[in-house]
Formats: sequence, structure tokens, C-alpha cells
Amino acid sequence: MSEPFSFIPGGIVAAKGFQASGEHIGIRKNRAKKDCALIVSDTLCAAACCYTQNLVKGAPIAVTQANVANGYARAIICNSGNANTCNANGVEIAEGMCKLVEQHTGVGAGDVIVASTGVIGQEMTLAPFETGMASLAASLRAEGGHDAALAIMTTDTIAKEVAVTFTLGGKTCALGGISKGSGMIHPNMATMLCFLTTDAAISPAMLRAALAQVVRDTFNMLSVDGDTSTNDMVSVLANGMAGNAEITEAGADYDAFKAALYQVCAQLCRMMAKDGEGASKLITCTATGARDIDTAKQVAKSVICSNLLKAAMFGADANWGRVLCAIGYSGADVDVQRIDVQFVSRAGVVSVCTAGSGIPFSEELAKTVLSEDEIDIAVQLNAGEAQATAWGCDLTYDYVKINGDYRT
Amino acid sequence: MSEPFSFIPGGIVAAKGFQASGEHIGIRKNRAKKDCALIVSDTLCAAACCYTQNLVKGAPIAVTQANVANGYARAIICNSGNANTCNANGVEIAEGMCKLVEQHTGVGAGDVIVASTGVIGQEMTLAPFETGMASLAASLRAEGGHDAALAIMTTDTIAKEVAVTFTLGGKTCALGGISKGSGMIHPNMATMLCFLTTDAAISPAMLRAALAQVVRDTFNMLSVDGDTSTNDMVSVLANGMAGNAEITEAGADYDAFKAALYQVCAQLCRMMAKDGEGASKLITCTATGARDIDTAKQVAKSVICSNLLKAAMFGADANWGRVLCAIGYSGADVDVQRIDVQFVSRAGVVSVCTAGSGIPFSEELAKTVLSEDEIDIAVQLNAGEAQATAWGCDLTYDYVKINGDYRT
Repeated sequence: MSEPFSFIPGGIVAAKGFQASGEHIGIRKNRAKKDCALIVSDTLCAAACCYTQNLVKGAPIAVTQANVANGYARAIICNSGNANTCNANGVEIAEGMCKLVEQHTGVGAGDVIVASTGVIGQEMTLAPFETGMASLAASLRAEGGHDAALAIMTTDTIAKEVAVTFTLGGKTCALGGISKGSGMIHPNMATMLCFLTTDAAISPAMLRAALAQVVRDTFNMLSVDGDTSTNDMVSVLANGMAGNAEITEAGADYDAFKAALYQVCAQLCRMMAKDGEGASKLITCTATGARDIDTAKQVAKSVICSNLLKAAMFGADANWGRVLCAIGYSGADVDVQRIDVQFVSRAGVVSVCTAGSGIPFSEELAKTVLSEDEIDIAVQLNAGEAQATAWGCDLTYDYVKINGDYRT
Repeated sequence: MSEPFSFIPGGIVAAKGFQASGEHIGIRKNRAKKDCALIVSDTLCAAACCYTQNLVKGAPIAVTQANVANGYARAIICNSGNANTCNANGVEIAEGMCKLVEQHTGVGAGDVIVASTGVIGQEMTLAPFETGMASLAASLRAEGGHDAALAIMTTDTIAKEVAVTFTLGGKTCALGGISKGSGMIHPNMATMLCFLTTDAAISPAMLRAALAQVVRDTFNMLSVDGDTSTNDMVSVLANGMAGNAEITEAGADYDAFKAALYQVCAQLCRMMAKDGEGASKLITCTATGARDIDTAKQVAKSVICSNLLKAAMFGADANWGRVLCAIGYSGADVDVQRIDVQFVSRAGVVSVCTAGSGIPFSEELAKTVLSEDEIDIAVQLNAGEAQATAWGCDLTYDYVKINGDYRT
């Protein structure tokens, strides 16, 4: 993480040689909502993906797995409004989407990453793609990243785009991405939909390794509601147009690349958690002083997954007993009698528990701290040096409202 | 399950030789709310308990474990309003409660099961018990079960009491109990608070075996919010006053006893799920056709734990994709392409998914079926003969409201 980098605009098209578009092609009834994104690289890219571990998988996952099996891809097509999951003709639809990309962009159907997000088990046809693909392809441009980010949104309230610039062997590189939440978010090995592009040159094997490790530390530490989606996918395309020497093994360049990838993914996690369905607050839990990284991760993730804790944070209630309770059932092997807990926000810090027992604190200060829209729950385990962060959000009336009638 | 039994009134005092009381002794500020229950048997009882697996355990758990280590006990003391958990002097308080029971009832302090429920990490003193124990003891009576049931309630809206009568070797026996929910309910090997009594004669070893098995099939298949409490406990006292030959080994009598215990515990689960925090509906999931019982349990429990499914049920939205999604991430090894799903209530049955894919159904009928206050999600796995039921509830605005400001 010593390599310098800085955030830049551009998201999914921040890297050289990528163009994107996003339009309404008729999958959704609401004509004002873009529902299909297309992203294309000027040249063939090393490609890596992580997929949901849910046994119920969207048909696009199977088609994408086949298409990137050789380590390369060049385009991404993704619709919102229908997950193309639990449909009898799902694979046919997903393959049809890839063929339409080939017809209108010249990218081979076998070099397309295909994804869908929306309602599960809803009939789907190729008709909107047949109608809309020509315009999607014609609209591709180097400034089209925001349209693509808008087109993949479901219940998200803001588009999620991040990019960074960094250098590899004196060459300026960019890496950016877009993602969508905002419910059914509890990644397991992969996550919701996230598409990443970079102009760095890196071999498919090293790209896969970097993505797998970064996903473990970012998207797999994110939860909105404990439900692992059927369509989760993170994919990254690297077209090498930055001109750096191709990364083919571990070393300083690989570390710099991974650090850039981590920054983009962590920032997207933060944005997705804060925009979780119905969320009014970003809740992070930072577990420090753990004996090992797995313990730190188990603790941090259990805390941000607790419905009770999430509801207390919505109410700005310093009910720290729920933090200890969630640590206790996390499965992590911790010494409860050593745990300290603080609530932290830009309004201040309030210590509520030392060595596993409650300590007196100002309820007024606690209310002020917890009334902010970004809260960190700092858990000190006092057992070692490892630490981890997990990202989540509060549980609100609006989560229930959104999900009480999602299909209509 | 062939032995006949029938439900009878009386709850925790339905069995011969048990008396109970419940009063306000000053733990809660609201004087109208009873906050301490006392249950005493005329004679020493075989005793068995299951405890929470949360690493953060209420102090009363440790004291109870010590007191029932010899297999016997005679009284139960339980307060609500304070969980006596994460308090520096917790064990001292719990032991003090037992000593006060001894002073005022003559039951040895080492024969007392002690439990507390309420806010975690809140300072607690013995003062209310010192003031109130005399009256609690003086109020003990064979009709006091309802008062005890009221006194252990926290956010419960109804008292939960169940009892059955059955026969062992020609002797009429009774078995009954009380329990409290209604949040932080996701039992793991044990559950919230449930106290059971019976006049059947059974050895401590067989009582423990029966309780362990029944808890696995009942309380461990119950979830309100996915949070395993720090104070969960199920305990049963058997005083033998029915006069049956003591059950000391497996056989017909043991099976009859276990069937009665199952009926009481399953009914209490149903009541707790329906009265889950903020719940407007009881949601059960019955998984049938599983290759084995563990698979059936994993599937049924995953479905009733899904926040997304729970919110959809609140909205009477037949979003069956969420049922398949929850099965898919349950960890159970199932063939998705064989799964059928139906929504069932007293208003009718609606089939929504066959062989893993959606089928056309009447949205109107689905709305009618799902607008009832007891919904069963019938999952047919078509892979074997095993089945299991899990009990849960919907996720509502009121759950968020209750837990947004629980401490005040």
C-alpha cells in the first residue's frame, strides 16, 4: 500500500481504451430509467471474475464463466429490471445477449461478460435487446461511464463510480469501476454486480489472484441484509493500453496494482453500504487487536450484520450490549473479558465498554455521536495485532417498505 | 408420537406439585409491569437445561450450570428488565438471588435455576430482590402460572403458556411451560427463556437426553431476527409426583414423554414466532422431500431467516425468488432444478415454482393467501423422505421501531 495513488473521475471509463453506454431499452416499464449498460474495450483484455456462491445462480453467471474460461474478454453487457434467474430459457437469453453484442460491436460473442440484475423468476425475452442493441452500440463513448453506472442500478439511489490513477514502472495507469447494490447484499466469495476496468497490463493469472484477494478484504466484508444474491459478480478487464511491462508474477508492480484495486473496491463497498436499501447511515465496524485476520473479520462482519445493532444505530441508541452479543455468536474465538468498545463519528468518540463490562458514559454525547450519518464501531480485542473492517448500514422503516413490495 | 395427549390449561403449574408467582419488585420503572417470577416444586426434581452457545453469556447461566450440575433442582427465579450480562458483579447478583430464594422458601440456594432477561450491560443491584422476595414467596400458589408468564415478558405482547396431559404406565401426567421472546431470537443449541415443569418421574440423564433432542427440533428451528441471545436457556423440572415408574431408559414411556415435551415446545415456538418483535404474521417453512433431516432443517431455517423474504411476507408479495435464493445460500446440498414452492394459508394454496422455474399464477389469489396472519412456505425438494419445519415471522416497521430505541 506504499505506492501513491489518487482518486480521479471517470469510473468504468477512466482507463484508456474503454467506452461505455447506458440506455432504456424496454426491460423496465419506467421509460425514464436506463436499464441496459454496454462497456467495450478497444482491444482484447485479460479478464477475471468472482461469482456468487449461492447454489441458485442466474443464467448469465454460467455463460460468463464459459466466456472468460480462457482468461480473456473484451466487453460487458448488463441489464437491470430482470435477474434472468430461475427462468427456463435463461441460458438462451444470456447467450442471445452476447450474440447481439457481437452483431453490433464486432466483439466476439465468446469475449462478452454478461450479467443481469432485478427480479428473480420473471419471464424474460430477447426482444428489448434486439430493439435496443443498435442504439446502445452507437452510443458507446469514452464519456459514457456514468450512463452505464445509472443503467445497472436497481433500488440504488445513487450511481456508484470510483477510479484511481497510479504508476507501474513509470507508466501512468488508471483503474476504475461501477457497482450496484442495494439489497440482497451479503457477498460470499463475490458480491452484487461490480465491473472494473484498467489499462494496466497484467496476465490473466495474476489478475485473478489480485481480484480474489481484494474481494476477500472488501466485498466479502460488506453486508446490507444478510441475503447472498443469486447474481453476484465482480469482474475486471485489463487491456494493457497503459504500456507498462505486463505483470506476470508477484513483486512491487503486482503489489501496486493490488493496492489500486483495493482502493477502488473498498470505496465502492463504502458507497454500497451507505446506499443500502432504506439505509440512513453507513455503519462500519473496525475490529483491532485480533490474534489473526480471520478473527478480526469474523468479529467485524458479525457486528455489522446484526439486525438488532442495525436497528439501534437507526435510533441512535448506544445499545452496546448488542455489539458484544454479536461478537459472542460470531463464531470467533475471543476473550470477552478483554473487549473494549467505542462508538466513533465525526461528532466525537464515546467509550461504552471496557474489559467486557459497561462503563458510565454520557447519553447526551452518545446521542450526538450516533446521530451522524457515518458511524464506526471500534472493537479492540486486546489479543494481538490483526485488524479488519466491515461495511454495513442501519435497518430502517424504508428497508421494510422497499422490500414489502419489491416486484411492483 | 403415537401416544395420545391433549392440551390443558395451567402452563407452568399444570403439573402436580408446582406453585408459581409473578410480581413487580422494582427492577422496571413501570410499576404496572411484573418483573420477577418464582416457580417452586413441592419436592426435589430431576432437572435439565440447554444454554445459549453465545460466548458472551449472562452471569445467571454460569450460576445455573453449577446448580444443576448434579441433575437436580427445585425452584426457578427469573427477572425481566435487566439481563445481568456484561456487569462486573453479575455472578454475585445471580448467587444473591438464589440465596434470597432459600431464605424465603426453604429451597436450598444450590437447587435454584436463576435467569435474567432484558437490557445487556446495565448496572444491577440485589435491592429489588431483597425488598420483593418475601412477597413473591408468600404469593406462591398452584394458580400462579399466568403471573409468572407475565413477569418474564420483555417486548412480548402476549404471555406464552402451554401444557399437555398424557399417560405413562396408566398414570396421568402433565407437562407444561412458559416462555418469552421476542427479539434476539435465533437459538443455537438452546433458546430464549423457556421454563418447563412436569410431574412425570424421569431420571436426570433421560430428561437431559429428551430435552436436547426436542430443543434441536423446536427452539433451534425458530428465528425472529437472526441474533442469538446471551441469556438463552430452556430448563425443565420433573418432580415425579404423577407416580409413574421412573423413566430410566429408552422405550415406550420415554417416547411418550418426549412426544409430550415436543408438543409443548413446538407450540411455544409457534407462539414466540407469531409474537416476534414487530411481527404481524407467523411464517413457517415446511421443507419436505429432503434426502435427510439436516438438509430439510437447513433449507427451512434459511428461508424463515431471510430478511428479504420476511419483508416480502409483510407486504403480502409472492416474491418466491427470495425463497429460492435463501435455499441457494443455505449451505444445504440440494438440486435446485427439482424444487417446487407453494404459499399456503387458510385462504388457500398458490403454486409459484415448479422444478426450479417460475410458473404462471394468479397474483390476486397470491395476495389473498399471503394476507392471512399465518403463512406456510411449502418447499418440496423431491429428493427423499425427510422433512422439517422452521418457525419465524415477518419483518415490519414495528421491528425497526422497537429496536431503534429499546433501552428507553
